[in-house]
Amino acid sequence: MSSTPRPAALIVRQASPPNLEMPFHTLDERITSGAGHYVRSHFPAPELNAQDWRLRLGGLVDSPLELSLEDLKAMPPHTLTATMECAGNGRLYLSPRRPGVQWDLGAVGTAEWTGVRLSDVLERAGVTPGALEVVLEGADCGTLTDPGRTPGEIHYARSLPLSKALDDVLLAYAMNGQPLTRDHGFPVRAVVPGWYGMAAVKWLTTLHVTGTPYQGFFQTVDYSFWAFRDGLSPQMVPINAMLVKAQIARPAPHDAVKADSSCEVTGAAWTGNGNVTRVEFSGDGGQTWADAELLDAPQPGVWRRWRALWQTPAQPGPVTLLARASDSAGRTQEDGYDAGRGGYMINFPLPITVHVQTGEA
Amino acid sequence: MSSTPRPAALIVRQASPPNLEMPFHTLDERITSGAGHYVRSHFPAPELNAQDWRLRLGGLVDSPLELSLEDLKAMPPHTLTATMECAGNGRLYLSPRRPGVQWDLGAVGTAEWTGVRLSDVLERAGVTPGALEVVLEGADCGTLTDPGRTPGEIHYARSLPLSKALDDVLLAYAMNGQPLTRDHGFPVRAVVPGWYGMAAVKWLTTLHVTGTPYQGFFQTVDYSFWAFRDGLSPQMVPINAMLVKAQIARPAPHDAVKADSSCEVTGAAWTGNGNVTRVEFSGDGGQTWADAELLDAPQPGVWRRWRALWQTPAQPGPVTLLARASDSAGRTQEDGYDAGRGGYMINFPLPITVHVQTGEA
Repeated sequence: MSSTPRPAALIVRQASPPNLEMPFHTLDERITSGAGHYVRSHFPAPELNAQDWRLRLGGLVDSPLELSLEDLKAMPPHTLTATMECAGNGRLYLSPRRPGVQWDLGAVGTAEWTGVRLSDVLERAGVTPGALEVVLEGADCGTLTDPGRTPGEIHYARSLPLSKALDDVLLAYAMNGQPLTRDHGFPVRAVVPGWYGMAAVKWLTTLHVTGTPYQGFFQTVDYSFWAFRDGLSPQMVPINAMLVKAQIARPAPHDAVKADSSCEVTGAAWTGNGNVTRVEFSGDGGQTWADAELLDAPQPGVWRRWRALWQTPAQPGPVTLLARASDSAGRTQEDGYDAGRGGYMINFPLPITVHVQTGEA
Repeated sequence: MSSTPRPAALIVRQASPPNLEMPFHTLDERITSGAGHYVRSHFPAPELNAQDWRLRLGGLVDSPLELSLEDLKAMPPHTLTATMECAGNGRLYLSPRRPGVQWDLGAVGTAEWTGVRLSDVLERAGVTPGALEVVLEGADCGTLTDPGRTPGEIHYARSLPLSKALDDVLLAYAMNGQPLTRDHGFPVRAVVPGWYGMAAVKWLTTLHVTGTPYQGFFQTVDYSFWAFRDGLSPQMVPINAMLVKAQIARPAPHDAVKADSSCEVTGAAWTGNGNVTRVEFSGDGGQTWADAELLDAPQPGVWRRWRALWQTPAQPGPVTLLARASDSAGRTQEDGYDAGRGGYMINFPLPITVHVQTGEA
């Protein structure tokens, strides 16, 4: 039983289960096509059908619900645009190497998602006092050994604080106007604007409202990091909002560029907190920086494409290009990588090496 | 800089940091002597002195406190008896072998602790609404690789739900009427009746009242287990109350016993939930069971010694002795070990092999 055929455009980082990334140098449109959008899977894609599929909602609610796909589609539809980045995007740039899928630049994409607001479903069920989080569980299941060993066979699951669940989270059944493909979570997945992709649970079948923080594998052993709080030793914190980050699309790593010429550099930048307000570009490995031009209007949770004109050096040889973004929350990309993040939330400016050539480059 | 000299009576499972156990077959008194009580250390014992030591209390309180040892001793003293068992006691009996200190039967003991009620300290500071837990942090610190790697250098720390903290937890400065030794947490440690020993933080220096569950290393990577809740995939749950358990002290493992004779079997039994109400003994590997006699009056959180008379077989050869306890909460020791506990909370009846001998045994 195989998954949807893969467009040749995607780089296969892992064939089974499918972990596919966009060749980031192909970035052109603000909206990534469904076939060009990265795929992150932890377990084999379950084969669900629209007739039998049900979404069950229980826990701290007045009326537990069991909804069919038709029930969901009968509720008011909403469409939102969201940039989704895998929390491990760029892991290839870490040294020492960290376990996990060795993503280059392309585990990120922007799509228009259509579905039902999670808040509408929660309101229909009636959340009771004491509710703190909503756990989202998918139909996908299995065992893992990297990172860590799962406690037997488990389902993929994550939780959201109630405030986020009631804010802007979507239960999506369409991507860019088309029903979800199997790899993207058919028939229904979560879309969590501004958060790393691990929150966007695919093949969604269970919602559970809890009065205590959820402590599943993908919120503790995996997709969490160590942070200092209250002056105590570090505590395990689930990964949530995307950090501010700019990426260079073109030139691509190891492209040849013509010496002593004007080269257009393009890319995209995003953040989980408000909007990207500034992108800077460096053509000399960080010695000097210049503002890039932002091409898209600001919209929270959505990347802004950018461009810069770079006067290339007269001397041939390798050069390191860098880009860094700042956001409306006042954050700028940090220079280094905090090892406590354990291979996630990689938002230092990624060094892109290109080769300056004289003559007919 | 070495720790207190070790009484020869204790078995050294790990010399540095000191992890020492009682030879359980020496069990006689209800109260274990300070020198005979097991020692569990995660990091080298810090050298604290009574003059400079301070206990700091902060977080969700009206008035943060900084208390000296004299301040504590000026508060109303309380004495309580508590059986304390290491959550990994009996790990030696697990197959396959689990990482960690390979404790036999003796990582358990009962002492009289004197100190100040944690509730009195919390009341003095004034806990504010929204408080959920109290984090207890010790002065001991370092890095670990087993189990798991700590996020850099950390302090030993655990939390207690506010309800437990306000109930019966003691900040102890004396053990069996004597000041704590360095190995037992001088000058002040926590004593948490009914809970496994990992809650009884030694070398206590910091209390922090939080509104969110504490997620430190010793409450997530270590000293937690996977449990099913809410019909979802398993979640990580911190270890807390001791399970019901009986242990055989004499005969000791591999003792010779005389065939066709009456042999006195002794031991102790404890539980974190109410009182031990029954101990059963089996002299034939679990085929038949008989009630043992309980020697001590019931007292929550304190073991009850027991004895049984065993008519030994006429035939020579190895025999497996077993004991199992039940408690006032209606629990009985389970036959098998739940692998999800990961080397902790070992309360199946531990098989003690003895050798029946004819003639002059």
